[in-house]
Amino acid sequence: MTHIIQNPEEFAETALAGYCDVYSRIVRPVPGGVVRSTHSEKGKVAFVVGGGSGHFPTFSGFVGRGFADAAVAGDIFASPSTRLVYEVCKMADLGGGIIMSFGNYAGDVLNFGFAAERLRAEGIDARIVHVTDDVASAPKDQISRRRGVAGDIPVCKITGAAADRGDSLDEVERLSRLANASTRSFGVAFGGCTLPGAIEPLFEVKTGMMALGLGIHGEPGIEEVPLAPASDLGKLLVERVLADRPDGSSARVAVLLNGLGTTKYEELFVLWTYIKPLLEAAGLTLVSPIVGEYVTSLNMEGCSLTVTWLDEELEPLWLAPCDAAALRVGNLPDATPAAPLPDAIVVDETVPESSEESRKVGELIARGVKALSDALAGAEGELGRIDAQAGDGDHGHGMARGAAAAAAAAAKAASAGAGAATVLGRASDAWADRAGGTSGAIWGLGLRSAALGLSDTAAPSAETVTAAVLASLENVMALGGAKVGDKTLIDAFEPFAKTLSKRVEAGDSLATAWEKAAKAADEAATATAQLLPKLGRARPLAERSKGHRDAGAVSFALVAHVTSKVE
Amino acid sequence: MTHIIQNPEEFAETALAGYCDVYSRIVRPVPGGVVRSTHSEKGKVAFVVGGGSGHFPTFSGFVGRGFADAAVAGDIFASPSTRLVYEVCKMADLGGGIIMSFGNYAGDVLNFGFAAERLRAEGIDARIVHVTDDVASAPKDQISRRRGVAGDIPVCKITGAAADRGDSLDEVERLSRLANASTRSFGVAFGGCTLPGAIEPLFEVKTGMMALGLGIHGEPGIEEVPLAPASDLGKLLVERVLADRPDGSSARVAVLLNGLGTTKYEELFVLWTYIKPLLEAAGLTLVSPIVGEYVTSLNMEGCSLTVTWLDEELEPLWLAPCDAAALRVGNLPDATPAAPLPDAIVVDETVPESSEESRKVGELIARGVKALSDALAGAEGELGRIDAQAGDGDHGHGMARGAAAAAAAAAKAASAGAGAATVLGRASDAWADRAGGTSGAIWGLGLRSAALGLSDTAAPSAETVTAAVLASLENVMALGGAKVGDKTLIDAFEPFAKTLSKRVEAGDSLATAWEKAAKAADEAATATAQLLPKLGRARPLAERSKGHRDAGAVSFALVAHVTSKVE
Repeated sequence: MTHIIQNPEEFAETALAGYCDVYSRIVRPVPGGVVRSTHSEKGKVAFVVGGGSGHFPTFSGFVGRGFADAAVAGDIFASPSTRLVYEVCKMADLGGGIIMSFGNYAGDVLNFGFAAERLRAEGIDARIVHVTDDVASAPKDQISRRRGVAGDIPVCKITGAAADRGDSLDEVERLSRLANASTRSFGVAFGGCTLPGAIEPLFEVKTGMMALGLGIHGEPGIEEVPLAPASDLGKLLVERVLADRPDGSSARVAVLLNGLGTTKYEELFVLWTYIKPLLEAAGLTLVSPIVGEYVTSLNMEGCSLTVTWLDEELEPLWLAPCDAAALRVGNLPDATPAAPLPDAIVVDETVPESSEESRKVGELIARGVKALSDALAGAEGELGRIDAQAGDGDHGHGMARGAAAAAAAAAKAASAGAGAATVLGRASDAWADRAGGTSGAIWGLGLRSAALGLSDTAAPSAETVTAAVLASLENVMALGGAKVGDKTLIDAFEPFAKTLSKRVEAGDSLATAWEKAAKAADEAATATAQLLPKLGRARPLAERSKGHRDAGAVSFALVAHVTSKVE
Repeated sequence: MTHIIQNPEEFAETALAGYCDVYSRIVRPVPGGVVRSTHSEKGKVAFVVGGGSGHFPTFSGFVGRGFADAAVAGDIFASPSTRLVYEVCKMADLGGGIIMSFGNYAGDVLNFGFAAERLRAEGIDARIVHVTDDVASAPKDQISRRRGVAGDIPVCKITGAAADRGDSLDEVERLSRLANASTRSFGVAFGGCTLPGAIEPLFEVKTGMMALGLGIHGEPGIEEVPLAPASDLGKLLVERVLADRPDGSSARVAVLLNGLGTTKYEELFVLWTYIKPLLEAAGLTLVSPIVGEYVTSLNMEGCSLTVTWLDEELEPLWLAPCDAAALRVGNLPDATPAAPLPDAIVVDETVPESSEESRKVGELIARGVKALSDALAGAEGELGRIDAQAGDGDHGHGMARGAAAAAAAAAKAASAGAGAATVLGRASDAWADRAGGTSGAIWGLGLRSAALGLSDTAAPSAETVTAAVLASLENVMALGGAKVGDKTLIDAFEPFAKTLSKRVEAGDSLATAWEKAAKAADEAATATAQLLPKLGRARPLAERSKGHRDAGAVSFALVAHVTSKVE
């Protein structure tokens, strides 16, 4: 468990503040993350990394000369919000474009993706390279579905070196993709990690067993096998990684043997004595291998092996000097302190022109968002309990926080005279910005998609609203990647949208159709929710990770129900 | 527990080999430890650190330019043998004298102390500075009795910087002592550590409690108190350290917030946000504070705060560049590789002149050592079990290993025609060299002291032998620091020596007197041994650490008994 703690809610933020103070030579804090405290040349590509906290020195420890320019830091194991990604990127921007990299997790894909869109809309060229090194998370022909684990280190080190060398955005992106395509990892866990403030670990590995292919947030492993002696463990790691060797790969490799938090240096060094000869026996030449704690998962017990096949382009970038908390290579000349940054990124909050009738709908929307916010606040504990039976129990809190921010933003916009589209749009942004995590991004996306179907000048018809809801469903399914039956909010959203559409088509009023749709959502969510207590905490790893999304269906149904009562 | 392991016996040695491979840029292996792999100027003071393993990056990670020249590595939590200390020092020697530093533990004090004597006998000026930073281990007026914990880092960093700057041996010693006198630490533990291969931790801290003042090998804490929030914990650490502030100390300080292994970086950073303002509020200016895992204790949960009060001499040494696995500060020019080292240090094994009668006694001694070696080999399991009820269970193994080496050395010396003094002297060296740990050093010392009372030319009388035994007891008590009733081998040794002396005085033959003395030892040891099962593993921390020495009394009695039968 976590022993040093003040307030679990502020753990990640406080840890980041402490890190910034200790490493003030290298980094300085900005809202939502860190940027270098050293001077960078204008016009350079800015390299921004990030993701959930709890993996130190990943990601905030990547920031420093020769490595990343900035890191966005979410809550423990939770993606930072779109707004935080956007703001940190604005702080880091040097005018040469932005490249973002992170571990290919749903929430990060959404939040960094939306932030990149927002930046591009402002004329800042923003590119994204997902790190997808974990061979256990998807087959070789579906590499883009793989998650990122300790491969974050070589991929981001190489990307940052290219950016600091002064390469163009196209070139940095190309080299970053090449580094990622050349990187493979495989990990094992001996024991789970415990979230700050929690008593029980997120998962457990049976004594005498090890879980193969585990991720860095307690994601399901692919199998549990008996704990092996170091020699066999080394063989297993090497075999799994080399079996996935990229086509046409070279014989020179960067290697990282990574400890996840509680597996100690001495154990990693013992394991290394078995791994190195096996890699060499496979004909590989090891180039500056590193062994230690680089991508951790709080106090998780386990380790992973990462290999990056180098070529004449990647090798100099892997060996280039850098000076970050995570890694120091070679010597860099003394640094010049950076110029001060603005305190915050100013966001334009003026309201576009609107019609009287759209303003009335805007007010109705603001009342609706207020009602659902109140309902979610009231249900926060219950939603947390549902979620805790399967996930990490923070769903209720994230929903309540996002909805409250959305309600405040909607009220503010409505009272400033905004039309329906702007009121709902502002609510969606606020939700995504404050809720954080995957569900925050999904709700922001859903509301934002719906807002695009509305207008600030015309009052929407029942058909317009239905079309907006269907478009929202489609977007959430496409970008979130879930379908009916995956035990996510889609299980409630889909029957809601279908019923709404059918009833409106059948001639029901919008209010009546909405009420019937809400009922359909409720029934679907309840069926899902009733499964949960039976599964309990002891259910297999493979099912456990879906819990968070189960609670999502329940909260969707609640929102649908509450909004059907708003007049 | 330790999950990555091949053979528990070889864990420390294998981990060291892995470390040397990964950090080959900085270090290279030698028998018993590591030395720099980079060139050092002839004539420079060589700075040698060391102690038990299991504390990475302490001590082997201290080796590197601007820090230590070499580290001697014992087994997990066990002092390296005298011979290994001696040999690593010989490898590290640059002709400018040697300064040794370590954490003031009994075994290290003995083994480094004997090694220093051996070096000085060869004309190499060897000095010792004990690190004594732990305020919890003895009151302020008995600083020399304090043990070294995380203060190893600033004290050794400063010492190494002075040595690398080219300071004279006198000057390096003076600055090292000044750094140690200016350094204070206080630590807390939230949970114990588990030795490689062991199932249960060495000690446990009750859930919801923390143990104040714990050392880095599971030594007893001074009290257990309820787990405190980070703010209170920070206050406690700062108060305990500042309460012990050295007289006349300055306002500028080096600070280390250290994690013991499982307490993670994020937790340390959270704690830092509370510690820093308190230090500043006390009027202190923080000079390059460091936060992380620097002196670990396997997978122990806990942390410590170390403060070194700097003056105009110490501050530049704290800030001087260094390049070691434990710490990298500033930039050093590219290193030149070091010249090759001899494979091993050659020890002169020629035998001094001896008389026929002394040779006969030498043969008797060789038979005696063989007999006690056989007996200890047979009792290894039982001695281990007695020890495991209270200590770490390795006593039987260490005794058997030491005795076997002593028997082989004695036999070799006797067959080469050595007299009594040389046979026993060679046996004592071999015992200390192979057994390692505190008991190895103590037995080596005891036998060596006895050998000094013998001669290679005259046959010893009963009175000579008695005087040698009494001198041995006196030396072991003086250097080992234990007295009767401390539950160590002294509990058996003292009645043995007293009875032997009394019986010889009363006119008994040496054989009869020895037999009676052995009986007295056995009775004393049995009384001690019988206590152990009742105490069990659950007994309080304060009693637990004495267990290893309890088994020592039993093995002493066994040795006394077996040798009384030798003819």
